[in-house]
Amino acid sequence: MNYIKSIITACALSLIAYTNVQAQTADKNSNTKTEMKRTGSATFIFGKETPWEDLGDGVKRQILGYDGQLMMVKVQFEKGAVGKVHSHYQSQCTYVASGKFEFTIDGVTKVVSEGDCLFKTPDLVHGCVCLEPGVLIDTFSPMRHDFLKK
Amino acid sequence: MNYIKSIITACALSLIAYTNVQAQTADKNSNTKTEMKRTGSATFIFGKETPWEDLGDGVKRQILGYDGQLMMVKVQFEKGAVGKVHSHYQSQCTYVASGKFEFTIDGVTKVVSEGDCLFKTPDLVHGCVCLEPGVLIDTFSPMRHDFLKK
Repeated sequence: MNYIKSIITACALSLIAYTNVQAQTADKNSNTKTEMKRTGSATFIFGKETPWEDLGDGVKRQILGYDGQLMMVKVQFEKGAVGKVHSHYQSQCTYVASGKFEFTIDGVTKVVSEGDCLFKTPDLVHGCVCLEPGVLIDTFSPMRHDFLKK
Repeated sequence: MNYIKSIITACALSLIAYTNVQAQTADKNSNTKTEMKRTGSATFIFGKETPWEDLGDGVKRQILGYDGQLMMVKVQFEKGAVGKVHSHYQSQCTYVASGKFEFTIDGVTKVVSEGDCLFKTPDLVHGCVCLEPGVLIDTFSPMRHDFLKK
């Protein structure tokens, strides 16, 4: 009878130990996912607490709010800095928060400044040159997963 | 022989006439769609040329760029104006372009100002009160079809 009791106790202890290991692994995975920020930002994002990423040649950016289907990025340009010509599968909408920019979208070039907006449908080739230092608020749908750190 | 020639000529003329009608119908549909703005905005949207819609109680908005999956809206608030508590199926990301706002999102209240950002996942209940006059750049995915005029 004592032998059976010992076996049951051993089984119970093994089960508890196993459950703990599983729980710890789940926590670790959860933390890893949070750190990697693959699925979404915080709800409140404060500009002063958000890191700037220096992209070189007078351009830097902050990744603001996002989930899988929508991402907002703040991009700061020095005078003469270039947003090089490119295209992507996302729809992109850009708000000119300050400064002056010469935008070329699908072969059409125009100068825009504070309060203006640019809409780039998927695959549309676009680029810009900063004429006066300023800030663009770029939004993408779906999100730009390539902007998230590996 | 002349009889056959006449038939061929009649057929050719009918085909040309039919093609013209088809082309005109396509143009008309295309124009109608552009006027109704159901599918997308222009590529370049100039703030000074874009109408403001007065929503009353110190709030007005401009619909800037959009397609089916992404829409940007500029919203101007007078001091004390309220973005009433609501929710929707779209993801929403808001950039604070100027002013100061008290935002409540999913039961959490914080004060935000220029350079800050709010991310509201679908169905999250949110609202705001304007503490100092300012402008929000709201973006939605998918677009807010209910914002377009009927």
